[in-house]
Formats: sequence, C-alpha cells, structure tokens
Amino acid sequence: MNNYKLTIQYDGNRYKGWQRLGDSDSTIQGKIEKAISVLTGEAIEIIGSSRTDAGVHALHQVANVKIAQPLTTERMMSFLNHYLPPDISVIQVEQVDERFHARFHATDKTYVYKIWNREYSQPFLRKYSMHVVKPLDVLKIKEAAAHFIGEHDFTAYANAKSKKKDSVRTIYSLDLVEQDGMLELRVTGNGFLYNMVRKIVGTLIAAGLGEIQPDHIPAIIASKDRAQTGGMADAEGLYLEHIRFKE
Amino acid sequence: MNNYKLTIQYDGNRYKGWQRLGDSDSTIQGKIEKAISVLTGEAIEIIGSSRTDAGVHALHQVANVKIAQPLTTERMMSFLNHYLPPDISVIQVEQVDERFHARFHATDKTYVYKIWNREYSQPFLRKYSMHVVKPLDVLKIKEAAAHFIGEHDFTAYANAKSKKKDSVRTIYSLDLVEQDGMLELRVTGNGFLYNMVRKIVGTLIAAGLGEIQPDHIPAIIASKDRAQTGGMADAEGLYLEHIRFKE
Repeated sequence: MNNYKLTIQYDGNRYKGWQRLGDSDSTIQGKIEKAISVLTGEAIEIIGSSRTDAGVHALHQVANVKIAQPLTTERMMSFLNHYLPPDISVIQVEQVDERFHARFHATDKTYVYKIWNREYSQPFLRKYSMHVVKPLDVLKIKEAAAHFIGEHDFTAYANAKSKKKDSVRTIYSLDLVEQDGMLELRVTGNGFLYNMVRKIVGTLIAAGLGEIQPDHIPAIIASKDRAQTGGMADAEGLYLEHIRFKE
Repeated sequence: MNNYKLTIQYDGNRYKGWQRLGDSDSTIQGKIEKAISVLTGEAIEIIGSSRTDAGVHALHQVANVKIAQPLTTERMMSFLNHYLPPDISVIQVEQVDERFHARFHATDKTYVYKIWNREYSQPFLRKYSMHVVKPLDVLKIKEAAAHFIGEHDFTAYANAKSKKKDSVRTIYSLDLVEQDGMLELRVTGNGFLYNMVRKIVGTLIAAGLGEIQPDHIPAIIASKDRAQTGGMADAEGLYLEHIRFKE
C-alpha cells in the first residue's frame, strides 16, 4: 500500500469537527475521504492526528491515508484542492513510510487560542477569535498560565463525556503574546483531553478578569472537580497549529 | 452643532457598499445612521470620506456627523458598538471643529488589495482576498505598477456608469509586497474613480499572468478606452486602509 501524509488547513466554522459522522458533508474527515474516494475509486479511511471539535480551526492538521494504486503527490494535491470547498485546503502531500500513523506517531501538539479584547468587535476576526469585552489583566493570565505547565492529572479539565481512563497529560509550554488588543495563547503538550484547551483558556480568562486568583489554580487542578474550572472558551477562537512526530 | 469624527472598520461582505440606499439594512452608512438616530432621536446624516462599493472592506473609513445635543465621545462609541452588528466597528470617536467635512477635507486615500496566489485556497482569507490560482510574476506586476504613478486621465479605468466629468487623478504610490503566497498591493492617490482601484488591479494581474506587457500600459491609459484594461478584480480583496486630511 502507498501511504500519504496530508497537511490540511481548515476554517472549522461550517463543520461538526474533524471526526466523520453519518452525514459526510458535515465533517472535515468526511469531506476529505469522499474526495479521495472519488479520485481513487477505493474505499479508504483517513487517520487524523487530532480530532478537532465542532467549530475549531486548523492551520496544520496532519492525516495519513493508504491507497492501493500509486498516485503522484502533485496529482493528489491538485485533485483534492479542486474538489474540496474553499474552507478546506490540502497544503502539502508527501509519500511516507507505510508504517507512519498520524495519530499514534504524534508526540506533541500545539494549539493557538485567539482572544480579541476591545470594547468594539474585530470585524475580520469575529468568527476566528473569542471577543472578551471587559479588559483582561495580561500579567494575571501569564501568572495563571504558569501553573498549568508540567505533568498533571487534568480530570478537572476533561469533558464529562470523556471516556479516557488516563487523564494525565504534560503541558510543555503555555505562552501569551498580546498585540493591539489581540491576545494569542499558545499551548504545547503531549496530548489534550476532549475540550481541555478550551477549558484551560476559560480559566485563564477568569484569571484575567479577576474572577479566579492565579495561585488558586494548583488547588483547582488537584481537586479533579470539573465544577471548579469556570467556563469553557468558544470554539471559534481555537486553532490546531502544529503537530510533531517521532523520528 | 457638535461635529463628531468617526473612524470605522467593516467587513463589506454582507453589504451593498457604504452609500445609503432605500433599505437601510443593506448599507454601512444606513446601519450607522440608524444607530445614531436611535441614540440621539435626531434626524442626522453621516458623511463618509469614501463611498466604498458592494463587498469592499474598510480598515479605517472616516465619517463625520453633526448632532444638536452634546454627547461624550465615550457614550457615543459605547452605544454604537453595542448597537451595531459585529461586522461593523466604530474604533474611534473624536469631537472636531464644526467645519470638518470627511469628504471635502480628504487629501489622499490609501487602498490595499490582497491576492492569494497558490493552487489551494486560503481558508481564513477566502472572503478577504482574491484567489488567483496561476502563478503571478511579481517582477512584472511591479514593472506594470510603476506606469500608473503620477497624474493621468484615468477614463480608461473609470466605470462606464461614472458621471464624473473630470477623470484626472494623481497616484502617489503603488507598491507590492509578497509574503508566503499573499500579495498585498497598496495604492495611495488624491482620489479614485468608481471601480478604478479594482480595474487597475485587474490590469496588474493580467501583467503578472503575462497577458498584458507592462510597457503597453501607458498606451492603455492614453487610449481612454475601457475595453483595453482587462478584467476587474473582485470586491472582496479590496480594503480602504487610510485617509489623510488637510491640516
């Protein structure tokens, strides 16, 4: 079998997330699988590195797909970009070792979260960021962010629906950059539970608004109590930015 | 009368342009006038520096409005941004001399045009740039752009519907910056005829595709013949960026 690695960018607004559901037109995975099936005539399945949630965007999602017939990467890229709607783009296609698995071989992932912090809205990013009207204290957010770094049991930050038995994850970095009213939070970890990034951002916003004291965060994490974490940030501010794989 | 200068940002996609039409819900001027009328109870008219066309965006449109009752700029800004939809933002309100007129006192205007030049689409800017799939020759575009600088009779670049008697305009600068597939054309002039910027960009794209030779452009301008200029670039790539006023 020929194994292809696809790097994919998408605007998540119109979709119910990455993972295929019954109706293939409502998910990114479904859309791309349909395009590859039309191209090859084969029944295929694509494996995404990250199952982004409804409304979440990707700058560099990675997926792999195995196909019986050999196709040039140029042909594949050209066909997919003609077939797919303009809110999903395949920005790179590479032929890779047959053993490469986009989910199992991912070692760490980086997400970006954008917060627009002015009284007025940002017309061009209104569907690509979360609008927080009240002023955020950037130093408080940075102070709060530091408490998430390292290995923790993130049960308090898991979705109630999460079926994962092991909620221990390691966050390598969680940085904030602010420019002209736009806050960008960038988090890298070895994996994230369902809704975990948006729940962490929810806590950071609460810290920036003075509703949660940063030094209370270790206790929130230790509590393993979902009720203590505050709100969950909106989906449209979240971007899957980068995935690293083991060599 | 109290005279207020408003700096306005908008995503033009949903609107039939700046200028008020019968149905006030379809234009930016109509939307803002309605908001100010609700706030003040006065029958007012706002004067925009530039009548941007259907689908065209603004980063810094400027308008002025005269109101009988004195209002603080904070109150005005806060009310308007609560009342207006999130694709129109009032980013600054200043009280100015009663003689200030946003259209008559504008001395020069800068527009930006964004062209996405990759085979695949750019999901996040698909409604905020023009997608040109074939590769553009950046040097040819720069060579072509130089021919537009200076004072010219731009009849060939006017819309057939234009009623302006005088088609002489001066372009001070027309620059191109390219980064990672995104081309930004930035043009500054003392004024532009209806559709003139989009028609100039149409010629520049034709030059970049090798369909028009740059050194033929002086003859196209001199011909005053609209049929020679090639196509008109899409509205959604165009942004009113900046307006300067006489001191």
